[in-house]
Amino acid sequence: MTIAAAHRSIAGAELRTGRKARLACRRGEFTGSTAGLAPGHVQCNLAILPQDLATDFLRFCQLNPKPCPLIGVSEVGDPCLPGLGANLDVRTDLPAYRVWHDGELVEETTDISKWWRPDLVAFALGCSYSFESALIEEGLPIRHIDCGLRVPMYRTNIACVQAGPFAGPMVVSMRPFRPAHAIRAIQITSRFPAVHGAPIHVGLPELIGIRQLAKPDYGDPVMVANDELPVFWACGVTPQAVIAAAKPPFAVTHAPGAMLVTDLMNRQFAML
Amino acid sequence: MTIAAAHRSIAGAELRTGRKARLACRRGEFTGSTAGLAPGHVQCNLAILPQDLATDFLRFCQLNPKPCPLIGVSEVGDPCLPGLGANLDVRTDLPAYRVWHDGELVEETTDISKWWRPDLVAFALGCSYSFESALIEEGLPIRHIDCGLRVPMYRTNIACVQAGPFAGPMVVSMRPFRPAHAIRAIQITSRFPAVHGAPIHVGLPELIGIRQLAKPDYGDPVMVANDELPVFWACGVTPQAVIAAAKPPFAVTHAPGAMLVTDLMNRQFAML
Repeated sequence: MTIAAAHRSIAGAELRTGRKARLACRRGEFTGSTAGLAPGHVQCNLAILPQDLATDFLRFCQLNPKPCPLIGVSEVGDPCLPGLGANLDVRTDLPAYRVWHDGELVEETTDISKWWRPDLVAFALGCSYSFESALIEEGLPIRHIDCGLRVPMYRTNIACVQAGPFAGPMVVSMRPFRPAHAIRAIQITSRFPAVHGAPIHVGLPELIGIRQLAKPDYGDPVMVANDELPVFWACGVTPQAVIAAAKPPFAVTHAPGAMLVTDLMNRQFAML
Repeated sequence: MTIAAAHRSIAGAELRTGRKARLACRRGEFTGSTAGLAPGHVQCNLAILPQDLATDFLRFCQLNPKPCPLIGVSEVGDPCLPGLGANLDVRTDLPAYRVWHDGELVEETTDISKWWRPDLVAFALGCSYSFESALIEEGLPIRHIDCGLRVPMYRTNIACVQAGPFAGPMVVSMRPFRPAHAIRAIQITSRFPAVHGAPIHVGLPELIGIRQLAKPDYGDPVMVANDELPVFWACGVTPQAVIAAAKPPFAVTHAPGAMLVTDLMNRQFAML
């Protein structure tokens, strides 16, 4: 499948820039998955927390850069992230949000303007869409994309480094590759440390506490053929799970698959 | 084990430069394995062929750069490789040689001066000692070194690209690593394309025609633990096996483990 075809098969191929994608979300015209939107542009996981938790969460990201690669942090009370996009407003520019009180989901919504407060801080974290784009450009087949499924994700027995109330296991995403492609995928994603970087594990899932590849904790199962190895990357669901477990009085996250589309290009994040 | 200890455990720790190692060989004072000699210096596989076969062999190396990374080629009839070392003489400066007539081993010797001819061309090819040195410096344990054994090597079902009479299967060396170390080893060796570079396979030996890891075709078997993956690199035994199969009227190769020690430093070969 060509890159263009892969993108078309998912969603919204007409929204080809970060700005167009964000404005479509802002106007309520687009509320689906951002997978395939604005090809080549960096998409981000979003987390919004009150200021009194922001320092601990920042420290958590710094201590756990593979699952939590920090790309942008707003000023306190400011819903803009000018470094990530012109006229970007985190209150309106994602397709869908989840609002949490004390760790309980209280609303899934397409606009959080009514929830905004002057003490909130927005965090944008790197996302696997960026490195998947690099893998596809190198001609590597990505099973869940080719099958039109969500990537399978698993809780591991690898503990994140704790920071204040933020703690929990690393969540990983899995993509199967033949061995030569697994080696190439390691090389390619090593160039993108800001979007999860190199895999954290390959080949022996039971060693990181994954008992059944066919039963992911999040996403959809995909087939791993006899001539393939499962390759595991640290996943942006990790900070979401950690925030849910910390039960902060208030938090907002992006809804699954509904990412913040930025003006930055994936290629800008290539280390070499 | 520290790097220094790893080197001491093998051989000749007092020969700390390429020049000292070569002169000890030239004087007949050192005839053993060069593993661990002149730490940090590039060591090479050696092949010597008559001029009328040299073009095909050069083309073979160009077509198969992973098993045959070419580091130096002499002028016709000249036993020096000035780019690889001051006062270097390929006739005397290796610990031991094998002389071949029509594919038959006719002599193993420490000096090939009497065999030298004005039509001979010497080829120096990169060797795994260089990338092993980089792996050890990064703290990765190398099983066969820790056990004082030769690296296990296997003929694969991967055909080299043919050039004239030179053809045959790729030979690989195997080192077991835990998955996180396997990923790191792929990253580290990717930086050294001139000395075999990244692995060519990981994890599923039967896919490249290896039936029993415990029965290598060359070298010694090593243990692969349940929490380890076998990682396979293209090996410098490949050109030796290909030359033997081509049965040239005359050829010289280094004796196993008795490499050409150069003045070049491994770090000079790091791509990044």
